[in-house]
Amino acid sequence: MKIDHSSTIKKLAKLGEEVLEQLEKKKNPEIDVRLRSLNNVYFDEKDRLIRLGNKVQKRSFFNLNQSKKFMQTMLIASLCKELLEQDKPPLSIRQIYYALKRTLPNSNENTFDAQKETDPLIEDIEVIIDALREELNLIATPKGVIAGPLTIRDKTSGDDINLAKMGSAGYSVPAIVEKNTIDFKHCSADYVLVIEKYAMWNIFNRLKFWDKNNCIIITGKGQPARAERRLLQRIHDELKLPVYVMMDMDAYGYYIYSVYKQGSINLAYFSEKCAVPDAKFLGLKVSDYENFSVPKTALIKATKSDMKRLDEIKKYDWFKTKEWQKELKDLKNFGYKIELDSMVTKGVDFAVKNYVPTKIENKDWLD
Amino acid sequence: MKIDHSSTIKKLAKLGEEVLEQLEKKKNPEIDVRLRSLNNVYFDEKDRLIRLGNKVQKRSFFNLNQSKKFMQTMLIASLCKELLEQDKPPLSIRQIYYALKRTLPNSNENTFDAQKETDPLIEDIEVIIDALREELNLIATPKGVIAGPLTIRDKTSGDDINLAKMGSAGYSVPAIVEKNTIDFKHCSADYVLVIEKYAMWNIFNRLKFWDKNNCIIITGKGQPARAERRLLQRIHDELKLPVYVMMDMDAYGYYIYSVYKQGSINLAYFSEKCAVPDAKFLGLKVSDYENFSVPKTALIKATKSDMKRLDEIKKYDWFKTKEWQKELKDLKNFGYKIELDSMVTKGVDFAVKNYVPTKIENKDWLD
Repeated sequence: MKIDHSSTIKKLAKLGEEVLEQLEKKKNPEIDVRLRSLNNVYFDEKDRLIRLGNKVQKRSFFNLNQSKKFMQTMLIASLCKELLEQDKPPLSIRQIYYALKRTLPNSNENTFDAQKETDPLIEDIEVIIDALREELNLIATPKGVIAGPLTIRDKTSGDDINLAKMGSAGYSVPAIVEKNTIDFKHCSADYVLVIEKYAMWNIFNRLKFWDKNNCIIITGKGQPARAERRLLQRIHDELKLPVYVMMDMDAYGYYIYSVYKQGSINLAYFSEKCAVPDAKFLGLKVSDYENFSVPKTALIKATKSDMKRLDEIKKYDWFKTKEWQKELKDLKNFGYKIELDSMVTKGVDFAVKNYVPTKIENKDWLD
Repeated sequence: MKIDHSSTIKKLAKLGEEVLEQLEKKKNPEIDVRLRSLNNVYFDEKDRLIRLGNKVQKRSFFNLNQSKKFMQTMLIASLCKELLEQDKPPLSIRQIYYALKRTLPNSNENTFDAQKETDPLIEDIEVIIDALREELNLIATPKGVIAGPLTIRDKTSGDDINLAKMGSAGYSVPAIVEKNTIDFKHCSADYVLVIEKYAMWNIFNRLKFWDKNNCIIITGKGQPARAERRLLQRIHDELKLPVYVMMDMDAYGYYIYSVYKQGSINLAYFSEKCAVPDAKFLGLKVSDYENFSVPKTALIKATKSDMKRLDEIKKYDWFKTKEWQKELKDLKNFGYKIELDSMVTKGVDFAVKNYVPTKIENKDWLD
């Protein structure tokens, strides 16, 4: 089925027209590119998410340092527009590099010589025209699986897919989850539970936690890919579902939680479109160790690098709330890590039947 | 729904009974463990797959070097049996380590101190009782996605899942694809196409190659996990479908092909249960470069380590056919690698509409 790309095509056309206009006026064509460097990334205290600032760099054609980049930016934008107009299937950022790489006529000069030339320009275009790369029909490989009482309409095929009928597999998060591709047809869930790793998600799925507790369960299999984060935001924003996140009790688990919640610095532009600022951190928290009588055999001694990472995380603006500073201090004093997987020590069903329901009932989470 | 684990439970019970019998006869209890070391792995020329040999090591209880391992083997087997009998959801090998780790009463001795103690013993048990770890209800994280005219019955939930109705996502390969969990209800496909990476699989899926060519398409997203390999063997063996494999033209792509086809040395026991010895290597082959007029911009200069890996692969028994030796020699002389992704240089649909149909029609593959 034909996907409606008209909004992105318009934005790309506008970019081209603006350049053309300048050319017709015999001006040096230039485009404004919001800087994606660290010093233009900030934590928005009010909305509680990572944002890209408004510092702008001009990229102009008649500038020895910028001329090639200007041409390359136009080449990428132009091919994306062409492929969208033809309703072609999406490409990976590696594939678009190949599709663009060619030798310029009567020269030994290539349009691009390495993917590291196309990658940052794709991010530039996302920012310039205010569209995600997925709207440009460019993808990253998705990783996650999801299950629960949610029916998705897949507009590429017209299929309605009931995420409560996916058995032991779950629904594979597709690479593009934008509104023109995936839509929500029906949902009766009360909340979303994000589980860090697959093995624990699998226990929750096999025990049909989502059925008994009327919720959606999703995992990004560790550090999530773009698609899972974007899908989570859409479910939260459009279906108005609270989001609870369950991670290992260590600096890495806490950080992954913050990626789901506030986004990440290195993809600040994307962060605005995937963050779920009111996601709650259900656990594992340091207090869970005593509250749930976690056995000593679950403890893993924190290494020097764990401690160092904890100190780093403590300095992030989004961890600077009183309760998080206390949690991070407690974890450092505790001196051990605990993985979610270790909960099976208390029984295979412990997390499903005891831990999560208790935590949610007692509102025992961190914000 | 209840899963039928009776066959594995019987095998585990038999293992326990044999030990008990020896104890009752006041013998030193011992079990035979087929060696999983390199010198007991061989390439079966007749069946063309990697197999575990018959060299056996005795593991006995009253032996200072083996006593702890003997106890540990019994502990794992015993817990697996218990969890199967209770029809509990499967655990990862990390989770089973946690579930087994405890301090022995009146001592400071733990049953297990690290996962590296449980992992090899799980493989031992697989070999001892002739059951895959998935039959023991232990899982590895699956990665792959699959689509096509195949309806799967998921016995954990009773869902019938039509892999032609999964839209842009495809069906997520579940962790366990054994017959007691997943069964094939209906299939009208003529063959299976294995695609190395996700991005190319995604193009084939979005263009509904599987519909137009009446086939199944699957990707393991690079090096496949256990579940995709096992599922591929079951589809091939039970549904009698030929398998074509499409990989990058480099030592790594060729090796991944061989993993799908013959299995791997380090999991020789599993190889027998996941190999597809008559899978065909569709490409990319060195001759494709000229036959399909691949542009020069697709070429990536082979590095020293690529060349070294090629030399290693050339020595594997399963690459010692005349045609493969020639192919590997040609690739070395060629001096470049070509990624499947680069085919988009010839058009986004080139692989779908031209390359694969031409190759299959001309039977232009390597065996």
